[in-house]
Amino acid sequence: MTDDGAEMRFLDDVTVELVKHSASDTDVLWAARVSTAGEQSLEEVGTDPERSKGLINFLMRDRHGSPFEHNSMTFFVSAPIFVFREFHRHRVGWSYNEESGRYRELRPDFYVPGTERKLVQQGRPGKYVFVEGSPEQHKVVTEVMEASYRQSYAAYQEMLEAGIAREVARAVLPVGLFSSMYATCNARSLMHFLSLRTKSEQARVPSFPQREIEMVAEKMEAAWARLMPLTHAAFVASGRVAP
Amino acid sequence: MTDDGAEMRFLDDVTVELVKHSASDTDVLWAARVSTAGEQSLEEVGTDPERSKGLINFLMRDRHGSPFEHNSMTFFVSAPIFVFREFHRHRVGWSYNEESGRYRELRPDFYVPGTERKLVQQGRPGKYVFVEGSPEQHKVVTEVMEASYRQSYAAYQEMLEAGIAREVARAVLPVGLFSSMYATCNARSLMHFLSLRTKSEQARVPSFPQREIEMVAEKMEAAWARLMPLTHAAFVASGRVAP
Amino acid sequence: MTDDGAEMRFLDDVTVELVKHSASDTDVLWAARVSTAGEQSLEEVGTDPERSKGLINFLMRDRHGSPFEHNSMTFFVSAPIFVFREFHRHRVGWSYNEESGRYRELRPDFYVPGTERKLVQQGRPGKYVFVEGSPEQHKVVTEVMEASYRQSYAAYQEMLEAGIAREVARAVLPVGLFSSMYATCNARSLMHFLSLRTKSEQARVPSFPQREIEMVAEKMEAAWARLMPLTHAAFVASGRVAP
Amino acid sequence: MTDDGAEMRFLDDVTVELVKHSASDTDVLWAARVSTAGEQSLEEVGTDPERSKGLINFLMRDRHGSPFEHNSMTFFVSAPIFVFREFHRHRVGWSYNEESGRYRELRPDFYVPGTERKLVQQGRPGKYVFVEGSPEQHKVVTEVMEASYRQSYAAYQEMLEAGIAREVARAVLPVGLFSSMYATCNARSLMHFLSLRTKSEQARVPSFPQREIEMVAEKMEAAWARLMPLTHAAFVASGRVAP
Repeated sequence: MTDDGAEMRFLDDVTVELVKHSASDTDVLWAARVSTAGEQSLEEVGTDPERSKGLINFLMRDRHGSPFEHNSMTFFVSAPIFVFREFHRHRVGWSYNEESGRYRELRPDFYVPGTERKLVQQGRPGKYVFVEGSPEQHKVVTEVMEASYRQSYAAYQEMLEAGIAREVARAVLPVGLFSSMYATCNARSLMHFLSLRTKSEQARVPSFPQREIEMVAEKMEAAWARLMPLTHAAFVASGRVAP
Repeated sequence: MTDDGAEMRFLDDVTVELVKHSASDTDVLWAARVSTAGEQSLEEVGTDPERSKGLINFLMRDRHGSPFEHNSMTFFVSAPIFVFREFHRHRVGWSYNEESGRYRELRPDFYVPGTERKLVQQGRPGKYVFVEGSPEQHKVVTEVMEASYRQSYAAYQEMLEAGIAREVARAVLPVGLFSSMYATCNARSLMHFLSLRTKSEQARVPSFPQREIEMVAEKMEAAWARLMPLTHAAFVASGRVAP
Repeated sequence: MTDDGAEMRFLDDVTVELVKHSASDTDVLWAARVSTAGEQSLEEVGTDPERSKGLINFLMRDRHGSPFEHNSMTFFVSAPIFVFREFHRHRVGWSYNEESGRYRELRPDFYVPGTERKLVQQGRPGKYVFVEGSPEQHKVVTEVMEASYRQSYAAYQEMLEAGIAREVARAVLPVGLFSSMYATCNARSLMHFLSLRTKSEQARVPSFPQREIEMVAEKMEAAWARLMPLTHAAFVASGRVAP
Repeated sequence: MTDDGAEMRFLDDVTVELVKHSASDTDVLWAARVSTAGEQSLEEVGTDPERSKGLINFLMRDRHGSPFEHNSMTFFVSAPIFVFREFHRHRVGWSYNEESGRYRELRPDFYVPGTERKLVQQGRPGKYVFVEGSPEQHKVVTEVMEASYRQSYAAYQEMLEAGIAREVARAVLPVGLFSSMYATCNARSLMHFLSLRTKSEQARVPSFPQREIEMVAEKMEAAWARLMPLTHAAFVASGRVAP
């Protein structure tokens, strides 16, 4: 327990919720068909499933990206700051609103890797391989992290109690602290994110995401695949490269 | 009638249809409140209309733009090419798919100004004033435009009949030809568009849009104002400057 | 000659001039190395040509795009309006300023395909092949286009002489009219443009650009290749896909 | 001293260096004049200083933004992570490459507020006023921060020595740790940044930046003002609102 009663929490997972959306495979179809057919009633588009699938696969493979932009998904994401640091480097087709350490006192929720998180890194930049840590290494991580987090949060609390502004006191808080945000994207910007932030044997271009942002990406991908199954399948089939 | 039976049409108005949307004032509220309150259930947000209005006005006035991005509107627009030429210069927060003169034979729909269109321009760049044209001037515009359009389209048809590729033959088609597209935006990118493409006495910064793109903008604004009335009112009250 | 003395010109080529730039392969190197080494003096970077080449190839292949953004090139481009219509759909990493038909009387420069331009299109969308036109077809194109252009420009002049505003009168001008603009980009946004607007046997993803925008793209590519030869070579080697 | 010999440093200032640029007031002038005059030789533009100043002021006041984009500035910035967190929310017209805690062991440089930093915050969100901290409060901040930083960095070192991957161990490092990056922008995107990240009595729209990002912004503004003095003066005169 901290002084103000907020309970310290050590979490090994992230949260992703699809808050709202306007996104379906049909959105891709009519956007694509305007180039050859002008306006069509939405009813006419997509009545032949095989042709719909073929058109989406063609657009993906030949990198016709704009038809994948006429849709929208908003996610609530709660994850450590070091994940958000990577996330916010995605600039195009993404909108963000995040909780602020200037306007509110931050809650003591911290990230500690779970037992399945591989802790040991081998190889060199661009060629990293992660391997299992030993039980001793997991023990070190858990104990050292929790102790360090406790100390940092206590320092934060001590400064707040001394009347120091939140935006100053927060400097001691670690990047393992959880933050939360709303993130809005479209299928094209999401695919670009997924191509860089997931690792897959199906990927034509290798990527080496940090596991924690990949955990966020996997949850987003699962939600998106339910909304736009044909588009998702085409993305996978094309080697997970965004059009 | 053209050779292939398409009827020549001279139109003095543009078409704007809101095809789909995921956009409400509430979207602004929860996006803004995440910064001070973390996640809230959507039910809690916006139950006090006066506070909602106040928050939206505050965000608009102090130019907190990002909470206005977590929403999406897709419009079908049919308008002359010279309008689309201006429209597509809006790059941020806009997605476009337009019919293609490479992939299809373009229909003979052309823009001719209506009688209420002011035809005479006075003053100098940045200070233009438009005044009524005389009946003779309207007669000249109507007759000269229609004759020129007919000739251009006949030249287009003649080349197509000679087996020339559509993308080559179209070079003679005028910028007064109608095209159509789907355009997707969010409230923030739409406000930026409206601030430049409408003329209003309420505007803090003067703008001098061409009337034809303003006709498109006015129809988009009307549709948007119905979806997000508080946000629209705040935009107007703040002098029609996008946050 | 037109009434105001401007001579009618029929052009079969486009103009591209590199107006200014701040772009070199070295810019890519130090941008990439900040991630592993913090700041380095510019002198230290890029002294070993083989390592420099290897790093740029690695970045390109694995799609690390951001190091290719810290540079800038401004081009002056003069080309037909139908080319600019496609050009301006490139939204990210591009800045444009174009001459305005609202603010000035447009000059009578028009595009007519040269003899090497293939005029006949076979196949279907996404699979087009262009083949040589017959001499008769070239004759039709030249004669019909020039006659149509002359008529359209005369109609424009007639309206201007009747006191009609330039922005109204221009509606009859064809998309084969030349316009001019300044366009500023960086190597990453240029590569994306080139990947879509050039056709190459080296391309991993096929593209089917209209020949006239490809003419612009080829001139831009030649200028860029001189500024950033290692980056250009890596782009070609990686299958002409932008990172 | 840390175990590996890196000396712990507590810094109260940020570093900003203009690494390279292609940016002058003249760039604005020719970009603006292409709309009315087509291409001009660069020599003709800007020979009359009063007209140049007048044109730039007009563009700024009436929000013609695109002529301010044909220029480029690259800065090296070293500042605490909490500053970069705010910085990277600027998405449009900005390119970033930052050092990576995945690829290198991070140096023990930490931010501790100087004596002139106001520590106490009064009022409510959107209306904050900062006032001087007492000597005791400065003492608390200095002592608590330094102790907390030392402890966090020791925990980081302990995990590294146990063979834990850098990307995992860094979770305990505080947002007061210094990072470094290259950031490339143009005058328009820089003005937008400055309008939100500096506080000024000349500002038409009030802003409440955190002091530490304002320190970065002030150094960037000073460098930019030397490169583009007319543009900077017009920005100030227009109330520090980006066009």
